[in-house]
Amino acid sequence: MSATPLLRGVFAPILTPVDEQLNPDAGRLAEFGRYLLDNGCHGLVVFGTTSEATSFSVKERIALVDGLLEAGLPADRLVIGTGAAAITDTAELSAHAVNAGTAGVMMLPPFYYKGMSDQGLFDAYAQIIGRVDDDRLKIYLYHIPPVSQVPLTLNLIEMLITHFPNTVVGIKDSSGDWNNQKAMLERFPGFGIFTGSEKFLLDNLRLGGRGTICATANVIPAQIRDLFDNWQAADAEGRQSALMWMRDVLGGYAAIPALKALVAQRTGDAGWLRVRPPFVALTEAEQKTLYAKGERVLSPVG
Amino acid sequence: MSATPLLRGVFAPILTPVDEQLNPDAGRLAEFGRYLLDNGCHGLVVFGTTSEATSFSVKERIALVDGLLEAGLPADRLVIGTGAAAITDTAELSAHAVNAGTAGVMMLPPFYYKGMSDQGLFDAYAQIIGRVDDDRLKIYLYHIPPVSQVPLTLNLIEMLITHFPNTVVGIKDSSGDWNNQKAMLERFPGFGIFTGSEKFLLDNLRLGGRGTICATANVIPAQIRDLFDNWQAADAEGRQSALMWMRDVLGGYAAIPALKALVAQRTGDAGWLRVRPPFVALTEAEQKTLYAKGERVLSPVG
Repeated sequence: MSATPLLRGVFAPILTPVDEQLNPDAGRLAEFGRYLLDNGCHGLVVFGTTSEATSFSVKERIALVDGLLEAGLPADRLVIGTGAAAITDTAELSAHAVNAGTAGVMMLPPFYYKGMSDQGLFDAYAQIIGRVDDDRLKIYLYHIPPVSQVPLTLNLIEMLITHFPNTVVGIKDSSGDWNNQKAMLERFPGFGIFTGSEKFLLDNLRLGGRGTICATANVIPAQIRDLFDNWQAADAEGRQSALMWMRDVLGGYAAIPALKALVAQRTGDAGWLRVRPPFVALTEAEQKTLYAKGERVLSPVG
Repeated sequence: MSATPLLRGVFAPILTPVDEQLNPDAGRLAEFGRYLLDNGCHGLVVFGTTSEATSFSVKERIALVDGLLEAGLPADRLVIGTGAAAITDTAELSAHAVNAGTAGVMMLPPFYYKGMSDQGLFDAYAQIIGRVDDDRLKIYLYHIPPVSQVPLTLNLIEMLITHFPNTVVGIKDSSGDWNNQKAMLERFPGFGIFTGSEKFLLDNLRLGGRGTICATANVIPAQIRDLFDNWQAADAEGRQSALMWMRDVLGGYAAIPALKALVAQRTGDAGWLRVRPPFVALTEAEQKTLYAKGERVLSPVG
């Protein structure tokens, strides 16, 4: 049994900057990570979907985690996304995250093959846990069927909690389906359930959830933190509603290039516009309309 | 300009055996590869979908290719599947395949993110080609939307052929949609178009296609070769129809575990039953019903 504290709060799946050759930019990443931790985030998820995680090789991902730690970011405020199509890749990334002293890992199921059975996905997680073979390993499952196309059913989650109660400690629900998240919160009390969208943050906390890991925490961390800190206040619903404007700003754009464009705007660093294929950076015209919509982006509380 | 000959014929996306720890088994793979080349296959695609390709890490995939060559399999009869979620992984696998002297590579688009634009997928292929930077690189695109969920449109194919005429030389169409394959054959004469299903082999050849890369070539290579060699014979349609029984045998089973079970039956080697998660091996009961359905499996021409 490890004494790792359970995570709670607002986590940003941090955007991953790339240099002119589209290689990972460790310096810009550390600077941005420090900004997010100083401006509302309890922690960072390094390599979520918003991070273009799977667009980087295992070597690149390990080097970026090492880079963050060398730059002095606190390991206990980092959760490392270690999902990959191959269980051996996920095991290697997860062992590295554990040995680096990070707070946990967020883990996609193997995502190339579709229509896999609960037993097959259970076997994949069991293989990864067995290969890491370290009771410091704390796994947050990652349910994001709109992208992965590989859902994690309630039945599978129960199988994993039952067999690995000290290892499988939570989940990020990015299904976009409140009924699914509500069913999880009711069926698995004590499990570390984070909402993948800030729009469900208040509802998540009211049913005993742990907070949020959401893309918009890259651009409005202080405002999301404000709701987290005041979810029991009389005006909590107003604060929840006030969060929603960023979804309107981002609507109609590919989220990752648009979020990077907002960071480019805030920092004045055009290098932040770059994305790794298969994403395409926003055009200048798209940037202009985005910036016009997002005039309020920099106000910390809306 | 390289003088690599254009590929034609029957290719098996070779099944990948694993040992008791579910690690790749290079010895069994080489033995099976030799069997397929001796029994009808013009060549092998090492790491297609049927090979559980994406369930293995880059290191594991490179080691298996090296193992085949060390075992004496002819490099010019091997096409290496190099698709991965990250362009840097695909570039590394492709550079290795080129330096090993193989006949070509088969390349999925980056497959984690869905709904990407033609421009974004073009940029991904362009980045990979630029990173390999070797005119010996010969790419067969891999269109398998039922699994990858990332289709390659005719427009994207045209963009790639136009920009990289000496590098992007063909495609495997595993859409399962004859109309799509027919449209490709008509629009891109001279492009190396392989059907991903033996059921379209005769139609593919009649419209100038190059043959097939199909899962069932793992179990009935001689019978598929017989059709390829006799596609202009008077009874070609009868030979095509005679191929179809294997689909009936496999119907109702997950294809990869079932194909492995058929290899286990032929060789008497139960180790062939093993699959890597997220797949699950057939149960004994499933094996029995499969073997009963497949009594004719070992007859070379049905």
